[in-house]
Amino acid sequence: MRLAVAYDGTGFAGWARQPRLRTVQGCLEAALRAVVRVPGLVVTCAGRTDAGVHARGQVVHADIPRPMLAAIRGRSAQDWTAVLTRRLNGVLDDDVRIGSCVRAPAGFDARFAALWRRYAYRVCDEAANADPLLRRHVYLRPTPLDLAAMNTAAVALHGEHDFAAFCRARDGATTVRSLQRLTWERDADGLAVLHVQADAFCHHMVRGLAGALMSVGRGRQPVSWPAELLTARARQSTVVVAPAHGLTLEEVGYPPDEELAARVERTRAHRAPASQR
Amino acid sequence: MRLAVAYDGTGFAGWARQPRLRTVQGCLEAALRAVVRVPGLVVTCAGRTDAGVHARGQVVHADIPRPMLAAIRGRSAQDWTAVLTRRLNGVLDDDVRIGSCVRAPAGFDARFAALWRRYAYRVCDEAANADPLLRRHVYLRPTPLDLAAMNTAAVALHGEHDFAAFCRARDGATTVRSLQRLTWERDADGLAVLHVQADAFCHHMVRGLAGALMSVGRGRQPVSWPAELLTARARQSTVVVAPAHGLTLEEVGYPPDEELAARVERTRAHRAPASQR
Repeated sequence: MRLAVAYDGTGFAGWARQPRLRTVQGCLEAALRAVVRVPGLVVTCAGRTDAGVHARGQVVHADIPRPMLAAIRGRSAQDWTAVLTRRLNGVLDDDVRIGSCVRAPAGFDARFAALWRRYAYRVCDEAANADPLLRRHVYLRPTPLDLAAMNTAAVALHGEHDFAAFCRARDGATTVRSLQRLTWERDADGLAVLHVQADAFCHHMVRGLAGALMSVGRGRQPVSWPAELLTARARQSTVVVAPAHGLTLEEVGYPPDEELAARVERTRAHRAPASQR
Repeated sequence: MRLAVAYDGTGFAGWARQPRLRTVQGCLEAALRAVVRVPGLVVTCAGRTDAGVHARGQVVHADIPRPMLAAIRGRSAQDWTAVLTRRLNGVLDDDVRIGSCVRAPAGFDARFAALWRRYAYRVCDEAANADPLLRRHVYLRPTPLDLAAMNTAAVALHGEHDFAAFCRARDGATTVRSLQRLTWERDADGLAVLHVQADAFCHHMVRGLAGALMSVGRGRQPVSWPAELLTARARQSTVVVAPAHGLTLEEVGYPPDEELAARVERTRAHRAPASQR
């Protein structure tokens, strides 16, 4: 089964289940157990977001035996997907919503089948544009950002590189990633938005990239600096990790159904699992 | 002095100061007293929002003696407007922000000089579009709304009418208002948004209009029904007032500076003050 999930990360200690902490995974698993009585049910997501990070386009899968899914429908005229979506939303708190749940194609794995993840990092860099209604997912820091300078700096980071300088390292995991998009845009509300897309991200990588580029945008570092960091191959203390609440997982891309199994194979072979975000 | 103010209404018992309750007016007056030491300072706004109603474009004025404004600057290289904006934002909680503060033109009155107020009422009418990041200012009710039917019904309400059927009455106050805009649109996120503009609004009027039109949009009432309510000239219990949190005061319009004094005169003469929202 495949779920589309959105959440406000403010009230969660991140995605991953932890004892005695409220996490997205923990809440989803509890909701699924309440609605579909599968013992030991586990959910897997495409992007394991940190504490305070939000998601609009999180993708999740769970293995639920077919007869149990069929039984959800009961005497309803709707199919089980609509009934399950409504029941899960009825059980969940309103800071996490299920957009849809559908039968997953054979070989589907939310994490290993994903081709790419796209995140947005939102900054309000002018006090006059501060919108209290958006404060939970927009980083407010009223120092003007030079978007042109940040975009020039970003170009050198496109493509496949070792992003160790921007990440929190994990033993034995590669920090080589393929960056497909890294561009700042001014949105209709005057916010500066970093759009980032890659095959996958290492721990803290998006916030490290956002932080480094913002140092350029505020004139603290030269335009050439982010590219120079690539040669370091290890975490750099000069890279300030941007605050979690500005970051939102927007979308995850998958190959066509018939290529899912091959993609899962290839991803597992290429990357140590713990580094996949 | 004229202030541009935005707030998330969730944590406020409305605009108007009340003993022992957290209100926008109370917080603004306390912040101004902390920064500019004017005894008995009072602020006046363009649209006195109810508990739970938000504002992006609230306009506020306060009378502060010129020497006090000049003194705010101190030894700063900036002018007093920038210094005061920064200091007020430093004192205020992050659910209310000052966008700007400027010297008000002669005769300016945030309430009586306003030509029009524009509000937006936001509804998510499809579960798949529910965005937890917007849940504080979007009313989530996953029953599809027929925008075409609501817009047809709205046309008959345009112009000057007695909107008593949609309002909570106040003794002696007229409920005749001039509705300049009342249109539903689908926004980029798939939300249904009611844009409403009038010279001024009576108590609960926008939420009454939104509620009545949503009854049409869900097929519970015929398209002709809202126009028929206009003839009632008194509050109708069939009009369900839409929840406060979907409503945001977006913008307030004023005449050119040289026409401000005349506008204040005319407004005071036309309407009993207590009905002005």
